[in-house]
Amino acid sequence: MAAFAFDLGAVDGQARAGVLHTPRGDIATPAFMPVGTAGAVKALTMDQVKASGADVILGNTFHLMLRPGAERVARLGGLHRFCGWPGPILTDSGGFQVMSLANISTVSEEGASFASPIDGSRHELSPERSIAIQADLLGADIVMQLDQCVAWPASRAVAGEAMRLSARWGARCKTAFGEREGQALFGIQQGSTDEALRRESSQRLLETGFDGYAIGGLAVGEGHGAMCEALDYVPGLLPADRPRYLMGVGKPLDIVEAAARGVDMFDCVLPTRSGRHGQAWTWEGPINLKSARFADDDAPLAPDIACPASRDYSRAYLHHLVKSGEILAQVMLSWHNLAFYQTLMEGLRAAIRAGRLASFRAQLRAGRRPDA
Amino acid sequence: MAAFAFDLGAVDGQARAGVLHTPRGDIATPAFMPVGTAGAVKALTMDQVKASGADVILGNTFHLMLRPGAERVARLGGLHRFCGWPGPILTDSGGFQVMSLANISTVSEEGASFASPIDGSRHELSPERSIAIQADLLGADIVMQLDQCVAWPASRAVAGEAMRLSARWGARCKTAFGEREGQALFGIQQGSTDEALRRESSQRLLETGFDGYAIGGLAVGEGHGAMCEALDYVPGLLPADRPRYLMGVGKPLDIVEAAARGVDMFDCVLPTRSGRHGQAWTWEGPINLKSARFADDDAPLAPDIACPASRDYSRAYLHHLVKSGEILAQVMLSWHNLAFYQTLMEGLRAAIRAGRLASFRAQLRAGRRPDA
Repeated sequence: MAAFAFDLGAVDGQARAGVLHTPRGDIATPAFMPVGTAGAVKALTMDQVKASGADVILGNTFHLMLRPGAERVARLGGLHRFCGWPGPILTDSGGFQVMSLANISTVSEEGASFASPIDGSRHELSPERSIAIQADLLGADIVMQLDQCVAWPASRAVAGEAMRLSARWGARCKTAFGEREGQALFGIQQGSTDEALRRESSQRLLETGFDGYAIGGLAVGEGHGAMCEALDYVPGLLPADRPRYLMGVGKPLDIVEAAARGVDMFDCVLPTRSGRHGQAWTWEGPINLKSARFADDDAPLAPDIACPASRDYSRAYLHHLVKSGEILAQVMLSWHNLAFYQTLMEGLRAAIRAGRLASFRAQLRAGRRPDA
Repeated sequence: MAAFAFDLGAVDGQARAGVLHTPRGDIATPAFMPVGTAGAVKALTMDQVKASGADVILGNTFHLMLRPGAERVARLGGLHRFCGWPGPILTDSGGFQVMSLANISTVSEEGASFASPIDGSRHELSPERSIAIQADLLGADIVMQLDQCVAWPASRAVAGEAMRLSARWGARCKTAFGEREGQALFGIQQGSTDEALRRESSQRLLETGFDGYAIGGLAVGEGHGAMCEALDYVPGLLPADRPRYLMGVGKPLDIVEAAARGVDMFDCVLPTRSGRHGQAWTWEGPINLKSARFADDDAPLAPDIACPASRDYSRAYLHHLVKSGEILAQVMLSWHNLAFYQTLMEGLRAAIRAGRLASFRAQLRAGRRPDA
């Protein structure tokens, strides 16, 4: 397999429009990665995910290690074959969900220990085990280091301790990962919204050396304004020649503002989760199809988006599906939302390449479709 | 629009393999019609339904008249445009659901009166209103007369009374329908499992004269054996040159046995309903993907069926989706089941055309895929 390579194509201010080459396909950046939590992007077939324009999807180590089990996925040929996605897959380390979803979890220098919310069984997740699951058993293309993410706000002491533990875990992950031609390992910067901690985190990660760098510990409750303030300096602390990945973000405006500050990769459950709850993203903002005001609305969600769910059905029909509790409502709105997000990313990349990101941001903020 | 025409292509014993020509497309018979209850074949996009091999779908007047409302569907361009199915649509009359699903229903000579299970509102469904909804407001291609279906077993007096009321309603439906070039009206034979009543019903329907004839009042609890016994004489009471439609049937073996006795059209919620509950139909019979015995089964459901859900995913993956409560499990299994049913129908038609229906039936009964 060929090595990973990141071509930093065009820049517009701090924003970058490039390509992350992987052995399983190219990822145009800034990229949005749909979340395929447990081997499925919720409610959608992988063909629909691909048709929405996604180059890469994300898988959750926490969910997959508990069910169906990482060893089982390995026996069945790895995650790509298991779930039917032939393109690149990024897996998270499992750490974030262990600390947010597991019933009982304890964190030590060694790693995390937790009880499964499915059956109460005990599991250990060390840096080495996380790498074994992601890189060897699931066979992810992009592997994330195990880290500890703290809630916001956090004291400087707590944030600093978690950041330094994350850095030590990052070094152990690098050792466990070793040198691999066809797979990449990303480090994760922590440090809450404290610039000195973010700087120290970056320095420690750079000493270890990774194929890409993620920004963890943002979008955890600090709000759009505080996140943007942190992003004014955070990406600049990471190497310019490696992809930068802002984990768990976000709404369309969050993504565009982060990309404008030099972030290359994003993931978020929002488009699929909100789709399952009747919400559709549009250039004018989110709308809820449950509302009676759509009962006779013959217009599609977005006639200019090349997705059947966006273009070929009336809002009245989608309203009817939502009101009737049809599974197809969840399918259609999840599909539309992913297509909307990918159309947004395509426009964002084009704007960066054309040096007109400023007007793109202004038009999106004004609730208008940005010029093509 | 061109007129309807039924080409009775090949026969093998009592079985027929023909084509029902409609202005919106040909229907190869024996045909299985997926049920699109409320403007959606549950869990599936219309593209998936089409890809499964369906020529025609069924819509439920009862559900659509209550939500979103027949007049609303008409304002939005009719049912085909509303739900995105450009091919032929058959609608039922609403009578069966009024009598089985409505909270409070009364039947008089005039028609049925009932309360909506959604909001308790009162509605009237006369023969004339049913035709107006189906033919004018929804714009169905094949319109069913309003009838009264009795439960099984029924006394001869009750079954006879319902049959004669159905015949009078059929005549009123014919008058209301009039002569239409692009739409067809089907009468419905009743009479429970009483041969004399079935004969009388047929004579009354023939006096009115319809474009096709449905067999109502079977598959209502009498069981496979009693249904087959009735079907030994029932289809022969209906004109040979018109399509015969056995309503609400059924399992694969029910369909094949009915087709062998001269039935041309079928509909049933079974493939989609069982798919939503984790069940997949296979040549060996139905299997439940919830079972732990599929946890490590790397084989697809049916490698020889040209449907992604049948061919491209392991039973282990589908088991995982079912266990995880993923919506995609319901999508995949509904899709596979419809594709399985359509593959069955294709094989059935080919067997009739080749004069080898006997071996087709024997192989299916033995739990083997019938020879192509």
